[in-house]
Amino acid sequence: MSGNVFGEREIISRISEILGGVENDDCAVIDTGEKYLVATTDMLHSKTDFPDIMNPWQMGWMTVAVNLSDIAAMGAQPAGVLIAAGLPPQSDLYFIDELFSGFRDCAAYYGTTIIGGDTDSHDELTITGTALGFVEKDLVLRRRGARPGDLLCTTGALGGAGGGLWAWQNSLESDLITKLLEPEPRLDQGRALARSRAVTAMMDNSDGLALSLSDLAQCSQVGFVVREEALPVAAGLVEMVGMEKAREMVMSAGGDFELVFTVRPGELDAARRACELTVIGEVVEEGIWLEQGGKRRRMVARGYEHWIGGTK
Amino acid sequence: MSGNVFGEREIISRISEILGGVENDDCAVIDTGEKYLVATTDMLHSKTDFPDIMNPWQMGWMTVAVNLSDIAAMGAQPAGVLIAAGLPPQSDLYFIDELFSGFRDCAAYYGTTIIGGDTDSHDELTITGTALGFVEKDLVLRRRGARPGDLLCTTGALGGAGGGLWAWQNSLESDLITKLLEPEPRLDQGRALARSRAVTAMMDNSDGLALSLSDLAQCSQVGFVVREEALPVAAGLVEMVGMEKAREMVMSAGGDFELVFTVRPGELDAARRACELTVIGEVVEEGIWLEQGGKRRRMVARGYEHWIGGTK
Repeated sequence: MSGNVFGEREIISRISEILGGVENDDCAVIDTGEKYLVATTDMLHSKTDFPDIMNPWQMGWMTVAVNLSDIAAMGAQPAGVLIAAGLPPQSDLYFIDELFSGFRDCAAYYGTTIIGGDTDSHDELTITGTALGFVEKDLVLRRRGARPGDLLCTTGALGGAGGGLWAWQNSLESDLITKLLEPEPRLDQGRALARSRAVTAMMDNSDGLALSLSDLAQCSQVGFVVREEALPVAAGLVEMVGMEKAREMVMSAGGDFELVFTVRPGELDAARRACELTVIGEVVEEGIWLEQGGKRRRMVARGYEHWIGGTK
Repeated sequence: MSGNVFGEREIISRISEILGGVENDDCAVIDTGEKYLVATTDMLHSKTDFPDIMNPWQMGWMTVAVNLSDIAAMGAQPAGVLIAAGLPPQSDLYFIDELFSGFRDCAAYYGTTIIGGDTDSHDELTITGTALGFVEKDLVLRRRGARPGDLLCTTGALGGAGGGLWAWQNSLESDLITKLLEPEPRLDQGRALARSRAVTAMMDNSDGLALSLSDLAQCSQVGFVVREEALPVAAGLVEMVGMEKAREMVMSAGGDFELVFTVRPGELDAARRACELTVIGEVVEEGIWLEQGGKRRRMVARGYEHWIGGTK
């Protein structure tokens, strides 16, 4: 086989087959006795993850943030971040100062630290973050667990990062650009939702809502109905790109780092006490459906897909 | 500043300053209550880590092995490995099968598994491994702890990987090439040495013995005398490259993945019961000295240096 292989189900399933039954969660989960240790790793590099407008501090922030978002999605408390940085030979001291300050500042903002790492020379700036966390065994949240009748919910607003990318590509000024460049993983919300015991399944939407729903549906062996009117669209997005494109971004654009989760029908109040959330639909037996004006159409999963394994 | 910055003390100390007091051990150490969680990450990529003769299975093996060697150096038991793989778009199924089988096989050989990861497209094959492990708090081995009078020891033989590289570069056949391409981290030895309670400090020699001694000396605030006649030279190395070059490789070539450690003077027998070892010198107050024929000369640290932080 030749050509670009990524996102191809054949490769992903081949890798899963070789490695054996790796469970498909935002983090890998290790039993440590009292608690679960959760661990996730994400490689970011210039070509695909760092837009030209991104400054080195933001590259550092982003690398830590995307990893911490996976910790949040398990309901876990972060316990440290490792950074392996492949730096171009021409990197100057300013760049290194800013990049490593970005790592440090994002970790500190979320109550954790950079505990170690590795630097190397690399033609293309390439940074792999690894985040570790702990979660009580009876509180851990996985992608499996959603049951028909549960309410489908999200934190925050959607499509903002997609809108930021669009604004930048079209040379517009917009607050959404900051949302794209300095994402804020939902660690407090993830912990509070776990503690509420109202949530049955959870993941982040870093690759877009549509792909998250597709993954949740597969892991929980359920379907979803999403009410388009209920989707919380990022402020200013419709005004900037129009309704149709805004809806597309809400479903398919990556980079939002909100939590998508399902709540037992009788326990919505408990979830609402944990954090601000929006009910965007409900869990059904099968299929992923978009409902608008009382009519349902089947959704085709789309989004930014380049992940495998247990730490999506 | 411009030009290649790696290995420069200025950058390394700058990063340490930005990140705060990261202890300089083979792994980062996290207190989990009963035990320590140890974690290490290493980025490998085609240009600097995978010689042309290396097949994809060996690339996979190597990536896991270098990380597990850091787990071994702490006296820890591995608990799982994460892999972030940036694969060139032209990678075919054979390459992916072999690469991921290499990850799996090395992990399995050492009693652990690949617990999760991330794949991405990358122009240059780039793989970051992260290994996790656990070690009893009273058994953990660090780079600090060596005291004057302790015996300096190593597992295995030295210079083999350097000899393998030389053989390959000179188009010679040699068993040492396998030693270079399929390194065997000393996990059993590391655990047994930790359990012996005879060891005061330990690290691996992945960047060469000289750099390991320099790091151990700095972390323990001591010096070393190394007896050149006592150094266990890899079988066939002197015959292939001559005595002078063999000694240079023993001191400075990377890739051996043996454990270098210090043993309390009265407890050498306990250490010997833990694993095969060679006493190569002793801990002194200051300086790193090579002793030959009863004469000492000061050693200048040399080796393959491209690391920082807590997971060297």
